[in-house]
Amino acid sequence: MSAIGIVGGVGPLAGTDLAQKVFKNTKANKDQDHIDLYLVSCPSMIPDRTEYVLFNGENPAPGIQKAMETLAACGATAIGISCNTAHSPKILSQVKVPEKTVFVNMIDRCCRFLHENGYKEVGLLGTLGTLRSGIYADYFKNYPELELILPSEETQEAVQDCIYNKEYGIKALSAVGERVYNTISAAIRELSSVGCQAVILGCTELPLVFENQDSLDKTALIDPTKILARELIKETAPEKLI
Amino acid sequence: MSAIGIVGGVGPLAGTDLAQKVFKNTKANKDQDHIDLYLVSCPSMIPDRTEYVLFNGENPAPGIQKAMETLAACGATAIGISCNTAHSPKILSQVKVPEKTVFVNMIDRCCRFLHENGYKEVGLLGTLGTLRSGIYADYFKNYPELELILPSEETQEAVQDCIYNKEYGIKALSAVGERVYNTISAAIRELSSVGCQAVILGCTELPLVFENQDSLDKTALIDPTKILARELIKETAPEKLI
Repeated sequence: MSAIGIVGGVGPLAGTDLAQKVFKNTKANKDQDHIDLYLVSCPSMIPDRTEYVLFNGENPAPGIQKAMETLAACGATAIGISCNTAHSPKILSQVKVPEKTVFVNMIDRCCRFLHENGYKEVGLLGTLGTLRSGIYADYFKNYPELELILPSEETQEAVQDCIYNKEYGIKALSAVGERVYNTISAAIRELSSVGCQAVILGCTELPLVFENQDSLDKTALIDPTKILARELIKETAPEKLI
Repeated sequence: MSAIGIVGGVGPLAGTDLAQKVFKNTKANKDQDHIDLYLVSCPSMIPDRTEYVLFNGENPAPGIQKAMETLAACGATAIGISCNTAHSPKILSQVKVPEKTVFVNMIDRCCRFLHENGYKEVGLLGTLGTLRSGIYADYFKNYPELELILPSEETQEAVQDCIYNKEYGIKALSAVGERVYNTISAAIRELSSVGCQAVILGCTELPLVFENQDSLDKTALIDPTKILARELIKETAPEKLI
């Protein structure tokens, strides 16, 4: 019996967002048609990933390991983590995937999706932590035809502000105002103007800006959480993928 | 160490909605401030609750029991179920709460909330299953000063249609159109016109119609899922309740 496991809590809302994207991408006419899913949202045991990757803070790998083992004990057979920075090789290299489970790597599957859909120049938006730690660049190395393009320093700072600002930021409001929408849209147009056919919304908050929107003008918007949700379905019950 | 456990999958989106309401009602400046939470969303093992309560269909109690035991084994100390009909005494009387865990009963806590806030006449909207099985009426018996008022048969049917209609219903669209908003608002005004000071949105889909809205005109809107989320926080880390 296959089941999906989610290492959540990184952050908590990103974990439930991934679970919901699994449900919304599943063919189901009634509750019982849905795939069994377990979520372990234990932020207390997973210290900040960016602090560790960039500044040698406390190590989140043991907590991620423990969450995976709990999921495997529950019965999960395909496990995903709903956090971009947790996919840093510096963290993941310390994690041993439990027996009889498959780890579905969000960033690798995202690259594979871009590759299979014929994209070449791909922009990336995210926190300064994600951009500066070079996590996406590490994975892009395995797909030589893909070129990763970052926005200007000024735009990187503006996106960071849209995510974290205490007054109007997405994390503070759990909602998206006009100012945030306009700033992120301008960042995408900047990347489009230098040749990007697609832009990765590489922070779990950014897809909230464009709910139910797959593109802006002609630029494809890539949501790694949605890709991970669909890959988890493919690994457990491919016939149920919408 | 305290942790929250959610029996989800009944339906799947109601489980993640409850988890999100826990997160949104928690005082937290960073991921690590959140309370540990486990979600077991295994709809394959929990048959339809309404079918069982009204028509003697397959028994969902053993699946609910198994989900609770999995949650207890993970480390959950306070457990909730995000489904109104699952709280029928016909189902719950068969479920044994695992050792070292507290079961937080959504409908009983909802009644207690109404009692403590001095409400007297309280309306109820929900599926025909919830209304006809008398689940809320059963719990209201413990609070003699509370009077439960149902809408007219015609309005009950209209609400059922808003939830289930394949074209514009909330379940089908995972969204709320003008027609649904107007119909549900009219049902609340009908209950208000016969003296209700509060109306229970007694189906996990109905709070979606009034997101971020605690009242309509002067009628208080009671969301049992939000009440359950807050009670789960009180049982595990009361100092973190917003």
